[in-house]
Amino acid sequence: MGGREFDIIRRYFSDLAQGTQVVLGPGDDCALIDVPADHTLCMTTDTLLEGVHFPLGATGNIVAHRSVAANLSDIAAMGARPLAMTIALTLPADDEGWLEAFASTLSHLVSQYNVPLVGGNLAQGSLSVTLTVLGVLPVSKGLRRDGAMVGDDLYVSGTLGDAGAGLALVLAGDTEPGFLKDRYHHSTPRLDLGRALLDIATSAIDVSDGLVADAGHIAERSGVGLVINAARVPMSAPLLAAHDSQSALALALSAGDDYELCFTAPATTRVTIDALAKTLALPLTRIGVVVAGAAVTVVDAEGEPVPVPDAGYVHFTR
Amino acid sequence: MGGREFDIIRRYFSDLAQGTQVVLGPGDDCALIDVPADHTLCMTTDTLLEGVHFPLGATGNIVAHRSVAANLSDIAAMGARPLAMTIALTLPADDEGWLEAFASTLSHLVSQYNVPLVGGNLAQGSLSVTLTVLGVLPVSKGLRRDGAMVGDDLYVSGTLGDAGAGLALVLAGDTEPGFLKDRYHHSTPRLDLGRALLDIATSAIDVSDGLVADAGHIAERSGVGLVINAARVPMSAPLLAAHDSQSALALALSAGDDYELCFTAPATTRVTIDALAKTLALPLTRIGVVVAGAAVTVVDAEGEPVPVPDAGYVHFTR
Repeated sequence: MGGREFDIIRRYFSDLAQGTQVVLGPGDDCALIDVPADHTLCMTTDTLLEGVHFPLGATGNIVAHRSVAANLSDIAAMGARPLAMTIALTLPADDEGWLEAFASTLSHLVSQYNVPLVGGNLAQGSLSVTLTVLGVLPVSKGLRRDGAMVGDDLYVSGTLGDAGAGLALVLAGDTEPGFLKDRYHHSTPRLDLGRALLDIATSAIDVSDGLVADAGHIAERSGVGLVINAARVPMSAPLLAAHDSQSALALALSAGDDYELCFTAPATTRVTIDALAKTLALPLTRIGVVVAGAAVTVVDAEGEPVPVPDAGYVHFTR
Repeated sequence: MGGREFDIIRRYFSDLAQGTQVVLGPGDDCALIDVPADHTLCMTTDTLLEGVHFPLGATGNIVAHRSVAANLSDIAAMGARPLAMTIALTLPADDEGWLEAFASTLSHLVSQYNVPLVGGNLAQGSLSVTLTVLGVLPVSKGLRRDGAMVGDDLYVSGTLGDAGAGLALVLAGDTEPGFLKDRYHHSTPRLDLGRALLDIATSAIDVSDGLVADAGHIAERSGVGLVINAARVPMSAPLLAAHDSQSALALALSAGDDYELCFTAPATTRVTIDALAKTLALPLTRIGVVVAGAAVTVVDAEGEPVPVPDAGYVHFTR
């Protein structure tokens, strides 16, 4: 890779380490970061590979957004706030335009979410982006997956299935702007929601691999069963306009990439959660309950089990 | 990748998150880590690609060691102690033996250096390992690159050129055990030295890309010149046995991968540094001085400039 790309990296990326928490940015052996007193550190890492986690030919803007949003969504699902991140980027060849687009979106998101980019690594290889993001939580807080209690309500934020439907459009070659594709390309990590839930929810996870698959992790880690009422699963008008109800439900239950939060909370917090939804202008829908048992069951309005169409997104084999 | 590999990952990697600093290990949206009070966080990330940063066909043991050692060397060069790390691993295909070897060495190093593996990502693709390592430093401490002062002495630990000579043997197909190859495959991050230098050195860097190239970063960041006395550059007996003196010096000045520490310190600390070398049983050799000016000059015993054979290791183009 030529010197021009290094110039771009330097030009775009070296300004991304701004933040009062950054004691020392890139250019030394390590970055130095202040962690506020009485806080616990959160750490998550995620790799996105071309052709696996985003389609071949995705623009730099889209890849940057998906990478940052996916990682920040994990921070949100913990109830934390972002502290800093590093990037490991491999690029196949000189493509100044792609890199410029990538860096531009990265810069925008770094500012928006106050998550300074304190270091990185650039190498030549097939296109992949690995971000490692740090966050902070007040000591002994945190929305873990293992705290769901029998009798709790089960909630999900926003609407589900949009990103899955959007991805299908993208893969079919649809390049027009549109709500569903935008939900795939520009998901919003629910950071404000996560933090607000710290004293409310008993468990949480982000919906990256599909509602049933991800809720299953709460069930497994908490040692409980979850019953989801299919009729209550929130779906957007554009999704329901583009798909019949059965296909829309299948996407809402099993498609990934929506990056909404799925969480459990005691029934005593219903009024608080309704108020929070209004404050955040974000639907928080009670879709089910926590029961004794194991795994996730989806039922229809009559309480009969609904078949779930897909085992959910498996990172490694897709 | 089959379920068998996931089983191996689970079997080997899930036990690597042990440590009193780990509040919550893998299996949730984020890991949770305690940072000691009055400490600053250090963060570094490094990607190793097959065919670029290690030879094609390198064993899992070797790749694991080189990955961990390279990243911990950055922690050492900051004077920090390791806190935790995450891994992003991409593997081309099923290779249970390779993965088992990799995990086994990783496990060994995690224990040896007390750097719990708190999270990771496994994906299918060309072989690469990205580690992100956290360390901690007492607040307002840290061996930065920008603190060298005119008049300081310039030091390097251990011996130089061994790993470069070892790599040449490896690339020539030499598979016999030997000191030089071992220095390439099993470098030692100088963590104890880095921490001991916190109140002694004015700047430090690890020698990953070659002495002249890396010392050049100290010169640039500190706004000083460095003069290295070629006759004082420490070289091992095996290196001098395998190469004539000119070729050995070229390796010692320009080859990478030794992961020794290069540092500057006031002349008033010479006795302290000599004592430290004895305590650590590690040579700490005064190889030059910090001068007004810029860049690195290598001189012979008569003070005449010695040509430096190579611009040093450039990550991206090798």
